[in-house]
Amino acid sequence: MSFQKPKGTQDLLPGVVEKWQYLENKARELCRRYNYREIRTPIFEHTELFQRGVGETTDVVEKEMYTFLDKGDRSISLRPEGTAGVVRSYVENKLYAEPDVTKLYYIGPMFRYERPMAGRYRQLHQFGIEAFGATDPAIDAEVIALGYTFYKEVGIRELRVEINSVGNPASREAYRETLLAFLNPMRETLCKDCQSRIDRNPLRVLDCKVDQDKFVGAPSILDSLDEECRTHFGLVQYYLTGMGIPFDINPRLVRGLDYYTHTAFEYKAEGIGAIDTIGGGGRYNGLVGQIGGNDQPGVGLGLGLERTLLILEAQGVEIPAQPPLDVYLVAMGDEAEKRAVPLLYELRGAGLLAEKDYLGRKMKAQMKSADRYHARYVAILGEDELIQGILAVKTMATGEQTNVPLDGLIDYLKQA
Amino acid sequence: MSFQKPKGTQDLLPGVVEKWQYLENKARELCRRYNYREIRTPIFEHTELFQRGVGETTDVVEKEMYTFLDKGDRSISLRPEGTAGVVRSYVENKLYAEPDVTKLYYIGPMFRYERPMAGRYRQLHQFGIEAFGATDPAIDAEVIALGYTFYKEVGIRELRVEINSVGNPASREAYRETLLAFLNPMRETLCKDCQSRIDRNPLRVLDCKVDQDKFVGAPSILDSLDEECRTHFGLVQYYLTGMGIPFDINPRLVRGLDYYTHTAFEYKAEGIGAIDTIGGGGRYNGLVGQIGGNDQPGVGLGLGLERTLLILEAQGVEIPAQPPLDVYLVAMGDEAEKRAVPLLYELRGAGLLAEKDYLGRKMKAQMKSADRYHARYVAILGEDELIQGILAVKTMATGEQTNVPLDGLIDYLKQA
Repeated sequence: MSFQKPKGTQDLLPGVVEKWQYLENKARELCRRYNYREIRTPIFEHTELFQRGVGETTDVVEKEMYTFLDKGDRSISLRPEGTAGVVRSYVENKLYAEPDVTKLYYIGPMFRYERPMAGRYRQLHQFGIEAFGATDPAIDAEVIALGYTFYKEVGIRELRVEINSVGNPASREAYRETLLAFLNPMRETLCKDCQSRIDRNPLRVLDCKVDQDKFVGAPSILDSLDEECRTHFGLVQYYLTGMGIPFDINPRLVRGLDYYTHTAFEYKAEGIGAIDTIGGGGRYNGLVGQIGGNDQPGVGLGLGLERTLLILEAQGVEIPAQPPLDVYLVAMGDEAEKRAVPLLYELRGAGLLAEKDYLGRKMKAQMKSADRYHARYVAILGEDELIQGILAVKTMATGEQTNVPLDGLIDYLKQA
Repeated sequence: MSFQKPKGTQDLLPGVVEKWQYLENKARELCRRYNYREIRTPIFEHTELFQRGVGETTDVVEKEMYTFLDKGDRSISLRPEGTAGVVRSYVENKLYAEPDVTKLYYIGPMFRYERPMAGRYRQLHQFGIEAFGATDPAIDAEVIALGYTFYKEVGIRELRVEINSVGNPASREAYRETLLAFLNPMRETLCKDCQSRIDRNPLRVLDCKVDQDKFVGAPSILDSLDEECRTHFGLVQYYLTGMGIPFDINPRLVRGLDYYTHTAFEYKAEGIGAIDTIGGGGRYNGLVGQIGGNDQPGVGLGLGLERTLLILEAQGVEIPAQPPLDVYLVAMGDEAEKRAVPLLYELRGAGLLAEKDYLGRKMKAQMKSADRYHARYVAILGEDELIQGILAVKTMATGEQTNVPLDGLIDYLKQA
């Protein structure tokens, strides 16, 4: 009997996992510079949280959640996205009582029961940030800037930022009416999805891939924004310009979720022959209240690490690999072996990346192994060397070889 | 309506999450030195994998798994431990075909539906390593050394290592008979658990907490070891001694699982008034075959991060906290604000940890905020400074203040 990983999941093996470590380290380092601190919420939550926080009628919640009863007959679900859990934790732990803006980031697995395809997995991984407690448009700009910098610093080229304002509820209600006046005459000609969406959320109709050409003359949400919304959106643009972050205004950009207010944004990059959305976010001033907190403004972004890696690969970007070994220890003979094991321990204790053979292989095979690990040095301990208390140390880049006393190897390698 | 985290789970918030980051960074750094590379297997696996790989009759599999049917009616389970998935992945991805020993580590969440109590959670976190493909006792010693070094380097005091050999199948069969001859006469007097365990696995009876005093004169497994086992165990001890790692031999140490062969070991440390086992592992030369691979030797260790943190706290060990901010930017007035936002972006772009206010607070409240973040410098930009193109920069440690040109702030802070 042999076992396979569950459908739609991945094993991240050495050689690939280093790319993930690289992206995550970059995200963590960037969050440190931007003063975002990590939060880790559970892998599963009560199902109702996602129904409330993501939206009961969204595909994610309706069709794609891993939902089950635990042994206490509570309905729990593997988290399909990161924001709901973070908001729940922010409220439950009363982080809103802290005097400063609460700036959080998360990195971790999410779960969606979708049909697996290239770059789409049932266990996927997201990096996201959330800032709670401030309405200042400087925070919107900061969140956009952090995502932009992340993509730039990992090496994505031809990155584009699209921004929009979806307004406050009053502006959106005004726009909704204007938009319905435009859409109603063509109602019968729209695709089925749009016909069902049009009354619930006509803004999303404009997002439809099928009917794009019909919407050329559609009214823009930007013309419906009230004073507050215009000022907010104006400052976001002012700040982005000041930062030197290029952006386009896309009045059709609405994001999938209903809870966004004011700023919405997406990052796009050229992938395999097409411009793909690789991440996005926005301001959500109603969500915290919806999840049971005193209402608090929030703004955040989320991006998929699988998608980021796909684009990096499509663009041929090199990701730094595992660092090479400092030294590979070759011991020949039982007595040398007995000395080599504690020596290896000392080398590692001194902070060096060190390895040896464990398969009783001959010298030549051990040298090949050293090569595979890109060892900078090979230190050879044979019977002769053992008697003299030395090692023959070979610099792999030059082929030079020199004798080093057994108790001087650490110093030699550290100075090299 | 408000939401709570599921029972038995934790939110790891800023202030605490840094301790986790510290432990994980230490584990990763150590694995780099020891040439172990990360593997990430899915959070859930087919249920049968754990039945086969952990043991169908173990409490973990029988009572504590989060098992459910996915939408495709496959029985899947959240992983209760790390080894089974790693072995599955090793076999499925044919890592045994690589020429070197396969040395892997994992860090991540595991799930057990247990009654929550202090330090015991339903979502728990483990760090583990596995080395496949070598029977060399040097690898057993290396695995023990890595765990030992991990605990030492994070600061655990009075650490003890206990080791044992549980032999190969032949030795264990011989011991089983000797042991049954000792236990049979007292069979009726043993606790219920032991009476049910005695025929399935008499070695585990010796582990019983209730009946310890009855087993004083029990035969030792070490007397049943054959030549191969004795040589192997002798070399493990020789290497540990050479490394200067203190250890005790505990012939009662059997670990919970049946798949161990030869070396078994545990780490113990003084926690809250008692000596606790904080981690352990052993050699498992039969497990890979059991999970469907060509049989390959393996040795590994696993340790709980929750447990490690508890012990560190009980021992009063300080864990390095979040690094302080380099600079907190105080902008007074709308125009200064407009200049401050892009300046903040530049500072962060230059690698500095920088923050500002987003709540329109007065100078005094902003200075307090800077203090809470332990900012090394505060840079003040008021209307006057803006006109002069300067910032008033205060060194928080000394209270000194000096003027710095706006475009010279990065250099000033980097040289400071």
